[in-house]
Amino acid sequence: MKTNSLAAALMTALAAAAAPNVNAQSAPAVPGYTMGQKSLARAPYTLADLESMKKSMLFTDEDIRYLRMSKAILADQTEAILDVWYGFVASTPELVFYFKNNKTGAPDGAYLGAVRKRFAQWIVDTADANYDQAWLDYQYEIGLRHTTPKKNQTDKADSVPLVNFRYLSALTIPVTTTLKPFLAKKGASSADVDKMHAAWVKSVLVQTILWSYPYVRDGQF
Amino acid sequence: MKTNSLAAALMTALAAAAAPNVNAQSAPAVPGYTMGQKSLARAPYTLADLESMKKSMLFTDEDIRYLRMSKAILADQTEAILDVWYGFVASTPELVFYFKNNKTGAPDGAYLGAVRKRFAQWIVDTADANYDQAWLDYQYEIGLRHTTPKKNQTDKADSVPLVNFRYLSALTIPVTTTLKPFLAKKGASSADVDKMHAAWVKSVLVQTILWSYPYVRDGQF
Repeated sequence: MKTNSLAAALMTALAAAAAPNVNAQSAPAVPGYTMGQKSLARAPYTLADLESMKKSMLFTDEDIRYLRMSKAILADQTEAILDVWYGFVASTPELVFYFKNNKTGAPDGAYLGAVRKRFAQWIVDTADANYDQAWLDYQYEIGLRHTTPKKNQTDKADSVPLVNFRYLSALTIPVTTTLKPFLAKKGASSADVDKMHAAWVKSVLVQTILWSYPYVRDGQF
Repeated sequence: MKTNSLAAALMTALAAAAAPNVNAQSAPAVPGYTMGQKSLARAPYTLADLESMKKSMLFTDEDIRYLRMSKAILADQTEAILDVWYGFVASTPELVFYFKNNKTGAPDGAYLGAVRKRFAQWIVDTADANYDQAWLDYQYEIGLRHTTPKKNQTDKADSVPLVNFRYLSALTIPVTTTLKPFLAKKGASSADVDKMHAAWVKSVLVQTILWSYPYVRDGQF
């Protein structure tokens, strides 16, 4: 399948999968969103480990304040943000590959749509910046869902078995770069937009590092 | 050893290890700097893989131009930059731990000093942004030197056997955040400083991902 037709198929699948209400706060439960549920395994890293990682990243309480400032700004823009992010995935064959339906070889619209609802919730959770044990355990769960055997399981998708490690932390850049204009849309000062953006970079990067745990050899994380 | 006395010991070690000339371009060969040498293993990832990673990070030719613009700005500031970076390591017990001398339990001044000379060269190489096979192979070598069995070998150090994975990509933030004021010191416009900074974030992040290869389980990179 050529890149252009792949992107076109993806766009069609996305349109079909678009939900009328993906604002996680007002929507009913998001399928597969299990933050805080007892079924989750305990994370193999601790809140103290997270604090050490934050310290090594100059990730301070000021960043947490700016993340929370971003919440009200982003809350009613999640669909528009996801349009941009999914457009980027659609136009990047290396990324849309991870949503391929094994039977058709085309992007799996149902799978993309299911992930998209959790992605909307993730925007809100990232802005919330509540780093407790439930949050930590869910980061581990997200990591597991990118790797065998948990990839595809949540959405009963028939897709490739693994998102390659090298794209996890890499996505910090497109996610936060394309977010910046949305941070600027509600009248925040340029300085505040810069600080919200910098806080988002730190938060997404530390999350992707936590998600990487299942990829890393025993004892080396 | 308490944090303060550790930091004090490190500062003393650093002062003792300071080299009179670490401008890599005018200095003689930097010990342990082996970019382009035949002894290096071929990287397990290809230049095409690198291009895909760059694409997923919105890392374009414009970024390369801004990295190269930074070279002339940073070339005579490498010692001052390294003072800031080493000060940050010294004040962060989680990081200076990786330079601990196993016998004394204190930071190893000779080891820190040897790494520092290659770190100065790394600033210049990052600004050069020449992504050829020799550069790629050297990224793999850098990754190996953070993990067992190659850690400590280059400098014959008696130190801890591994830098934990979680600190590699994390260091993208302090390295690039503290670099920004140096980018602004030679009269570049605020817009150009922002663009050089953004290009540095992409370059350091992609490098740390490449360095992570030895940590990642077989077939998952």
